[in-house]
Amino acid sequence: MLLTGELLIGGKSHMGTAGSFEAIEAATGGKLKGSFGGATLDDLDEATKLAWAAFPIYRETGLEQRAAFLEKIAELIANTSDELIVRTMAETGLSRLRLEGERMRTVNQLKMFAEEVRSGRFLDRRDDKGDPTRVPLPKPDLKFRNIGIGPVAVFGASNFPFAFSVAGGDTAAALAAGCPVVVKAHSAHPGTSEVIGRCIQQAVRECGLPVGVFAMLHTTTREVAQALVADARIRAVGFTGSRSGGLAFMEIAAKRKQPIPVYAEMSSINPVLVLPEALRSDWEAIASAFVGALTMGAGQFCTNPGLILAIEGKGLDAFIEKACEVISTQAPQTMLTPDIAKAYRKGVSALSGNSKAKKIAEGQKSNEFQCQAVLFETRASDFMADHAMQDEMFGSASLVVRCKDKSELIAVLEHLEGQLTIAVHMRDGDNALAKELLPLLEVTAGRLLVNGFGTGVEVSPAMVHGGPFPSTSDGRSTSVGTAAIYRFLRPVCYQNFASDVLPALLK
Amino acid sequence: MLLTGELLIGGKSHMGTAGSFEAIEAATGGKLKGSFGGATLDDLDEATKLAWAAFPIYRETGLEQRAAFLEKIAELIANTSDELIVRTMAETGLSRLRLEGERMRTVNQLKMFAEEVRSGRFLDRRDDKGDPTRVPLPKPDLKFRNIGIGPVAVFGASNFPFAFSVAGGDTAAALAAGCPVVVKAHSAHPGTSEVIGRCIQQAVRECGLPVGVFAMLHTTTREVAQALVADARIRAVGFTGSRSGGLAFMEIAAKRKQPIPVYAEMSSINPVLVLPEALRSDWEAIASAFVGALTMGAGQFCTNPGLILAIEGKGLDAFIEKACEVISTQAPQTMLTPDIAKAYRKGVSALSGNSKAKKIAEGQKSNEFQCQAVLFETRASDFMADHAMQDEMFGSASLVVRCKDKSELIAVLEHLEGQLTIAVHMRDGDNALAKELLPLLEVTAGRLLVNGFGTGVEVSPAMVHGGPFPSTSDGRSTSVGTAAIYRFLRPVCYQNFASDVLPALLK
Repeated sequence: MLLTGELLIGGKSHMGTAGSFEAIEAATGGKLKGSFGGATLDDLDEATKLAWAAFPIYRETGLEQRAAFLEKIAELIANTSDELIVRTMAETGLSRLRLEGERMRTVNQLKMFAEEVRSGRFLDRRDDKGDPTRVPLPKPDLKFRNIGIGPVAVFGASNFPFAFSVAGGDTAAALAAGCPVVVKAHSAHPGTSEVIGRCIQQAVRECGLPVGVFAMLHTTTREVAQALVADARIRAVGFTGSRSGGLAFMEIAAKRKQPIPVYAEMSSINPVLVLPEALRSDWEAIASAFVGALTMGAGQFCTNPGLILAIEGKGLDAFIEKACEVISTQAPQTMLTPDIAKAYRKGVSALSGNSKAKKIAEGQKSNEFQCQAVLFETRASDFMADHAMQDEMFGSASLVVRCKDKSELIAVLEHLEGQLTIAVHMRDGDNALAKELLPLLEVTAGRLLVNGFGTGVEVSPAMVHGGPFPSTSDGRSTSVGTAAIYRFLRPVCYQNFASDVLPALLK
Repeated sequence: MLLTGELLIGGKSHMGTAGSFEAIEAATGGKLKGSFGGATLDDLDEATKLAWAAFPIYRETGLEQRAAFLEKIAELIANTSDELIVRTMAETGLSRLRLEGERMRTVNQLKMFAEEVRSGRFLDRRDDKGDPTRVPLPKPDLKFRNIGIGPVAVFGASNFPFAFSVAGGDTAAALAAGCPVVVKAHSAHPGTSEVIGRCIQQAVRECGLPVGVFAMLHTTTREVAQALVADARIRAVGFTGSRSGGLAFMEIAAKRKQPIPVYAEMSSINPVLVLPEALRSDWEAIASAFVGALTMGAGQFCTNPGLILAIEGKGLDAFIEKACEVISTQAPQTMLTPDIAKAYRKGVSALSGNSKAKKIAEGQKSNEFQCQAVLFETRASDFMADHAMQDEMFGSASLVVRCKDKSELIAVLEHLEGQLTIAVHMRDGDNALAKELLPLLEVTAGRLLVNGFGTGVEVSPAMVHGGPFPSTSDGRSTSVGTAAIYRFLRPVCYQNFASDVLPALLK
């Protein structure tokens, strides 16, 4: 497995000279083998210049050629070695099982977009025939299609080293839309990034595409990351990360000479409503399933169930008691990076110090690189009075909000920030209440789910992984599922064009 | 014809108490009959509160019911009196012929959106069947649809008192998408606005819809307009107007607790390329047609041809000579408002005072309320050295840019800001050049047209009236044509819902 620490630009690679860094082993904080060189502003300029030059050619590739390119990337990633999995395990602390599954999910995602490209559906081609004889004015001939928005900057996530990273959802959607991609590799898994980046670079070469279609940069400084968002040749940004990071990019993008869209997935606490009949009849199973979802992958999911909403009563008491019991048995788990572990402890400690929240259970003790699961509870009135209680704690921490009655439950829902998901646990007797709440849930989250948890985002055409601010910067869009392609398209109309001047994709 | 000067809120009307104003006769600057009362912040709050309350009900109206509502508005507008046309002529200075046509266009636009609603296409319903037997994990059942984004604030344009105003494109698209609308009526045609607003109000009543589906406010202060954009219950903004106005709204929207999309159509100079063979063989006809497009409606179109780009030579000289000759015969025309006439003179005077631009023709003398046509010329190198030469002069003013050769023409195109339209005049021998330029034109404008001018925006499904910044705030979208409905939608996914809990529109 080749691991040079180099930048991937223009179909070649070279060592970046703006500082260097090593990958950190998540479980120990020690340095892993290999040194990665940071991109200079000149490297960035070269990458976006090549991307801009590649754009007019790449966006006019035939649908079959573009689909084959995505499938070639998928094939090369599917053929990566077990050595890669071992490296990614070290870089992220994630398990072999999880990473093998995630790699396959990434492969399937690329294949799904290849099918979407083949279908041509995303072009939304329209053809309004002209009528030169119409009075009082001739009717023009109008043809319509979506074209790629331009080169896209992709900032991968720490928590999905394959599926939301170098060849993840945003890259797949942008390439499918006809947009060159410049990736800023996440510094938490630079070795993984290099291997995957080289797969894309190889696919570009084997498919005979312009070298500017893909580039990957390393950097540890904000300067280069921000310059990428500010670069005039970049026309959209895909980002998955912290709220502060997303807001900073939104601000830079809005202040550009030509503002551009930023699709930032930022923070979400993914409320779980347990309705009265579900609590009454099934508190035990739901509580166990909840703890399972909460602690999976050390809770490091954007869709982690960070909030439980329910109406007071014996059912809720029993649910809480069971959840506490299961949480107390949970073993600690390695977190993605030492910084994430630190931030988690800080978030938990802030809520622990809040007199209106009560810590009611915690998992087994952790070391400094691990996550110790924890459960809090509070009253709805206190929750609504303190906005900080909606802060995401990225890890296996959750807060139960006790509501006095239905109207207080509704008040809490109205008070919530935008979310990626809201889950509703319900049994037959809960239908009327669920239907009453539905309109409120729809305006608050991008995905609503019944009797499940938001974790485990299915890669499927009907998926929505997005939601109202601040869960994302732009609730009109999704980062998973084929509808993600619309992020990176814009419409163009061709009036009275002779057919030999029209672009081939419109003929 | 009822004209009370009242605000239309909650299915009722009352006189606004935050100041009052009269409509101004465009041709004379005199006051027209009737006084209009400005909305207080309480009026605004009532309007958005009712809109928010109406939203969950209105967005779930059946497609047939929603289509019938749009058709009812269309019918009521089609039946407005000739007295309305007379009033609108006085308020705007536009001709009877133009206004009768524009009213019909507005009616047809509403009918087009009714058909789009009936088709259900915009819902983009998706249904990925679940598979509980899949291993290692069951496949969830996923259903997808687009829903209205929420109440929309619409700011009408001065230059289209029907088609881009109270019941114009943004209102039609938002209502079609399932969003209640709060209109800020343009103070240049408040009487027209009231009549049209009452048609919508009547349609809401006759169709049995919640009263909050529509409201219309008057105001002459920035405070109320800005408060409307900042209102937490407003979830998108449609605006047609000046660049400074659009930028101000973009800034307010971005700084909200929950940022929202602003669709602002701002400024565009709509370059017209006249290619060498067209110049050689047809300079005379193209020059005459150009002046016709330039002076139509006193040049007060967002798609007015404000820039001519061509390569030096005898053809261009002859074209310019002819254009100058025709311009010098043009009679002055009344502008929409005294302020617009003043701003036009200021813009023309700024370019006249620019030593690098030469005034080469002007139309017949105008009074202070009128537009005098004017043509300037400059060299490509001077144009590129002075960004102010790209400033829109809203009226019948245009600038010819003389390019030395093809590469200078390309350099000018690369230097251009985003545009609504680019027109290419070409004859057979120009095909190769047109194809070479096409990729550059596509990234610069939303609509490209051959052998015509951008004025006369066809209301048709394949139309794109939008373009890269600063022609609009968001080049991913159009304000004319059925694709405009996507401005006001967002996707929601329903996972593992029993069918009796699903919204009716998804069943």
